[in-house]
Amino acid sequence: MAMVCLSDFEAYAKKYLPKIAWDYFAAGADDCTTRDENILAYKRIRFRPRMLQDVSMMDIRTKILGSEISFPVGIAPTGFHQLAWPDGEKSTARAARAMNTCYIASTYSTCTLEEISAAAPGGLRWFQLYIHRNRAASQKLLQRAEALGFQGLVLTADLPYTGKRRDDVRNGFRLPPHMKVKNLEQDFEVCGMSPLDPSVTWNDIYWLRSLTRLPIIIKGILTREDAELAVRHGVQGIIVSNHGGRQLDEGPATIDALVEVVEAVRGRVEVYVDGGIRKGSDVLKALALGAKCVFIGRPALWGLAYKGEEGLQDVLRILQDEFRLSMALAGCASVSEIGQHLVQFSKL
Amino acid sequence: MAMVCLSDFEAYAKKYLPKIAWDYFAAGADDCTTRDENILAYKRIRFRPRMLQDVSMMDIRTKILGSEISFPVGIAPTGFHQLAWPDGEKSTARAARAMNTCYIASTYSTCTLEEISAAAPGGLRWFQLYIHRNRAASQKLLQRAEALGFQGLVLTADLPYTGKRRDDVRNGFRLPPHMKVKNLEQDFEVCGMSPLDPSVTWNDIYWLRSLTRLPIIIKGILTREDAELAVRHGVQGIIVSNHGGRQLDEGPATIDALVEVVEAVRGRVEVYVDGGIRKGSDVLKALALGAKCVFIGRPALWGLAYKGEEGLQDVLRILQDEFRLSMALAGCASVSEIGQHLVQFSKL
Amino acid sequence: MAMVCLSDFEAYAKKYLPKIAWDYFAAGADDCTTRDENILAYKRIRFRPRMLQDVSMMDIRTKILGSEISFPVGIAPTGFHQLAWPDGEKSTARAARAMNTCYIASTYSTCTLEEISAAAPGGLRWFQLYIHRNRAASQKLLQRAEALGFQGLVLTADLPYTGKRRDDVRNGFRLPPHMKVKNLEQDFEVCGMSPLDPSVTWNDIYWLRSLTRLPIIIKGILTREDAELAVRHGVQGIIVSNHGGRQLDEGPATIDALVEVVEAVRGRVEVYVDGGIRKGSDVLKALALGAKCVFIGRPALWGLAYKGEEGLQDVLRILQDEFRLSMALAGCASVSEIGQHLVQFSKL
Amino acid sequence: MAMVCLSDFEAYAKKYLPKIAWDYFAAGADDCTTRDENILAYKRIRFRPRMLQDVSMMDIRTKILGSEISFPVGIAPTGFHQLAWPDGEKSTARAARAMNTCYIASTYSTCTLEEISAAAPGGLRWFQLYIHRNRAASQKLLQRAEALGFQGLVLTADLPYTGKRRDDVRNGFRLPPHMKVKNLEQDFEVCGMSPLDPSVTWNDIYWLRSLTRLPIIIKGILTREDAELAVRHGVQGIIVSNHGGRQLDEGPATIDALVEVVEAVRGRVEVYVDGGIRKGSDVLKALALGAKCVFIGRPALWGLAYKGEEGLQDVLRILQDEFRLSMALAGCASVSEIGQHLVQFSKL
Repeated sequence: MAMVCLSDFEAYAKKYLPKIAWDYFAAGADDCTTRDENILAYKRIRFRPRMLQDVSMMDIRTKILGSEISFPVGIAPTGFHQLAWPDGEKSTARAARAMNTCYIASTYSTCTLEEISAAAPGGLRWFQLYIHRNRAASQKLLQRAEALGFQGLVLTADLPYTGKRRDDVRNGFRLPPHMKVKNLEQDFEVCGMSPLDPSVTWNDIYWLRSLTRLPIIIKGILTREDAELAVRHGVQGIIVSNHGGRQLDEGPATIDALVEVVEAVRGRVEVYVDGGIRKGSDVLKALALGAKCVFIGRPALWGLAYKGEEGLQDVLRILQDEFRLSMALAGCASVSEIGQHLVQFSKL
Repeated sequence: MAMVCLSDFEAYAKKYLPKIAWDYFAAGADDCTTRDENILAYKRIRFRPRMLQDVSMMDIRTKILGSEISFPVGIAPTGFHQLAWPDGEKSTARAARAMNTCYIASTYSTCTLEEISAAAPGGLRWFQLYIHRNRAASQKLLQRAEALGFQGLVLTADLPYTGKRRDDVRNGFRLPPHMKVKNLEQDFEVCGMSPLDPSVTWNDIYWLRSLTRLPIIIKGILTREDAELAVRHGVQGIIVSNHGGRQLDEGPATIDALVEVVEAVRGRVEVYVDGGIRKGSDVLKALALGAKCVFIGRPALWGLAYKGEEGLQDVLRILQDEFRLSMALAGCASVSEIGQHLVQFSKL
Repeated sequence: MAMVCLSDFEAYAKKYLPKIAWDYFAAGADDCTTRDENILAYKRIRFRPRMLQDVSMMDIRTKILGSEISFPVGIAPTGFHQLAWPDGEKSTARAARAMNTCYIASTYSTCTLEEISAAAPGGLRWFQLYIHRNRAASQKLLQRAEALGFQGLVLTADLPYTGKRRDDVRNGFRLPPHMKVKNLEQDFEVCGMSPLDPSVTWNDIYWLRSLTRLPIIIKGILTREDAELAVRHGVQGIIVSNHGGRQLDEGPATIDALVEVVEAVRGRVEVYVDGGIRKGSDVLKALALGAKCVFIGRPALWGLAYKGEEGLQDVLRILQDEFRLSMALAGCASVSEIGQHLVQFSKL
Repeated sequence: MAMVCLSDFEAYAKKYLPKIAWDYFAAGADDCTTRDENILAYKRIRFRPRMLQDVSMMDIRTKILGSEISFPVGIAPTGFHQLAWPDGEKSTARAARAMNTCYIASTYSTCTLEEISAAAPGGLRWFQLYIHRNRAASQKLLQRAEALGFQGLVLTADLPYTGKRRDDVRNGFRLPPHMKVKNLEQDFEVCGMSPLDPSVTWNDIYWLRSLTRLPIIIKGILTREDAELAVRHGVQGIIVSNHGGRQLDEGPATIDALVEVVEAVRGRVEVYVDGGIRKGSDVLKALALGAKCVFIGRPALWGLAYKGEEGLQDVLRILQDEFRLSMALAGCASVSEIGQHLVQFSKL
């Protein structure tokens, strides 16, 4: 079977992963409306391609928070990579480094931050943090990340409680006994998400600020009001995200929310987006609407499920080729030429 | 089979109820367009969730006409509960009391008002009235309800004649011989709805007013004009309803009609809505658009069909949990924080 | 099998008619887009029903060009009724008279005008005319109709050539040898529509005017511009029609076109509509948007195919009952109370 | 099997062509969204047909760049006709001449320009050019075309690189060994499109201008900005095209883009359109929106696949008959009467 586009990897993963793992990765909250809308919303955006531009020399590199990456696609934080591939997050880290892009490691990794760092020294990595009721544990974790050379702290804002993912409830999902949420001192029970602190507020960004010199990126913003608050509380970046449709169902598709967030932010901080990226042209649309970079979640897991770090590199390489091609066909030779003039929202 | 969401109960009821009973409960008028629109219209509403609010202490209680209920979901009036479960409305009353919410008992109950009251003393109940040609019978019925401690009188306004429900016609639907519309003196023939008075007008609200001290809630309002008339005629509450799509097909979905009714009412009386509620987040949407409380019809019957009062409690508990979770994920810790800023209508 | 709604008759006809006859009646031009849009467009119109009106005494009669009919549904001109039932248009005439409504007999009837008249003396009938190249033949035909007591002349304006109905081409449709287009002197070949005159213009209405004292109703108008021209050329009525979607595919649905025609006509002549009527509530919508009466085409043929005149009466009676019920449920006790306030166009 | 409409030819070709050839012709880029949108977009346009116009004498001829053609449908440039029929482009040329219309021969023909010319002397033909890195080869090719009597030069602007057509990648598409891209000196490898020059810019139009006296038509314009540039750079015609949806997926449907291009051009040069034409009424819509003529791509290949030049004539004749009929039914007797008043965009 030729792996030609990302849905080939999806089909592979669906076929070969254990059902309980596939269901966990695929899950959306409730009716999965938002999970699916993330994808459909891209389809409602039309390009306005420009012809006869010199696109013989393509430059698809960009920078995020000052670090150059080979193209504007990073790896979003997702949990439990060992469910997809035995080496888990170590493979993810290696693939990201090989492709010269950014990997956001999740609090809920099945490898320790130290293992991840050791697997791919020198790779560009950010660390994703959930604030736990045990604040000391969170502080220790983020300071470990900083010490290990992680270059950004991603605070997830949309999970005071875990969304209701019906299949996980039906399956009674929990990690197999030989896997652990290794970054947390004591073993971690997935179904009772009790360790997370639902009382976190904007002021806790000041608390984080006091603990680390890393840039803070807030993940899970969907409205202009929260974007404004994020900027005012001093974050360096915003990831427009609805957690892959796994938290509040029937919120906006991320590409739709991106528009209002970018407008509110007015260039004061970098804005990224995740959710629904399935083709290189989706990346182009996100950049045209103001994202500095996108992050992929499920497609990275499909790549891992296919062939570990090699499979994830395949996924990234396909996205890279498709992105470069769609840029060229739209008339852009470098990322700096991408702008809102390239897209329009379909009236349908 | 795990009962995870309301459609699990629907599937159960469809599988285990006699076809004639399922068809009766499921029926919509004509093409069932409005019945289905009630559900689809919720899907066109998008949340605008707010992040980093302290949602560690959730308060989902509310009050309707001064009575506190555990969360803003009551039981809408539906007929013939014995078709779903042998104990019929007695089970409904017990479940509603157990969950500390309001049950609107229908004129067309298969238990008497006295049996309902005795089954769950002290529960919050309203009585739903159809005005019959025999006005004395209607008067007697409502005064029995008042004497039994029912705390509200719900006048159904949208049934001068019964809507055309094709499956009921095909099935020749009527109650099995061992069931009766017990609240009415003489036996009651379902298919010839002749006892109902199609000459009822707004002035009859004054007549009802003269008969009872109970608050009067009018059910079946779908336009701003009728909402204004209802307020002017002195009702205490309005239930925006299209009778579950069982009367005039191709009227508005209730959640759409709610918007204009709430606007017209301008807070002068409480506004409720029924029709199409299938998830806790639907409740949140209805409240965000101005409903004080919602009422569920068919889902209550599915719960009864599953396990009587226990099954109905399961349904209510799922809705309660989902509602609490969606509130938290939208950034609201109490019902008073819910407002129109939480939603937007999708352009699709 | 119970005949509960019009689609029951459609299913019956599809099952029992010879394929070539079913295909001919069902045919739309090209992709059948407009044929289907006629129906779908009704679904995009929502009622705004009003409650607590006294609807105990329902009056659904109306008048068209001064003649009272029992309810605002007549029989549109369609050809070749013997394909549906042996007695052909004689049965149609009898059913229309029995139900006290108007029947528009087609030029392309398989019974003569004399046979039609004799079958149901005293019935309200209009005659539909195609203008032929042989003008004398057309003149003779219309004067026969006038002499026989037909009370209106319906000029079909949308058939300079016959639309392309793919199934008819595939089937090589023509009348079986024992049927004739009896109103025309010489036998009539259906597939080569050569006798029709494609040079007819608005001035020919003056020519018709000079030949008859009957009111002239023009059928096939879809734009405000043509509506204005029709009024200026002195017609007494306009039937908004796209020939059941059998002529130019991808024109407007008739209920959509009705709005602009009614607006242009400003009450100067009566406006009717055909196409897509499948339920009593469709009739209510058409009247709310300004039609004085609707005409049914295919449903009448299904009724004939079911049981001849008895079947057509069944169809009319169902529409009548549904129309009366939907009027009552919308809060109207008589046709004069129906108005535009009852409907709104869905934004979907 | 009767060939009644263009989709009959499509079904035939899909059934009888080798899969690799069918896939190549049918292919769209990525998800094929734009390929399919080209067709769907026509369906969103509604006619406003006018009645009672004298349409007894129909004149469907038009002129493109001064040359008369029998009706406003030409053959778009597509590659590799021998994949559809042994005689390849020679059959295409013969059919186009027989039907008295214009054929745009592709650079990637499997017959030489000389063979094409010899097959149908005197036919109206334009030559489609890709600019190659080897500019001398391109120059030689276009001057051969001019010497052979081709009357227009069509510069394809939307293929700096080849779009990603997944099925072609999966199939490892390349020409069978016995076919050649004969117009190019050395054999031509399809999958590595390296000979094409991605550095072509607007200034290269001046270069072409210096090489030939033929009118230059630019193909692949989709925006008003590029339309303005095309006019300013002195082209004589614009073909609004998205390469049949084979290049950048999720650009606009061509019939939608036509509107803005026509508006921008303001009559200064002729505008044509290709993509999605499947019925005569699509041609009428395109002309109503300002196209001077349309070009068909895949339907021509289906015609070839069916019966070579005879099959292509069948396709053209069907389109011609359908176009004439739809003009008549819309009330137009000649192409000059077609205008924007005939259409409106559906709100759906």
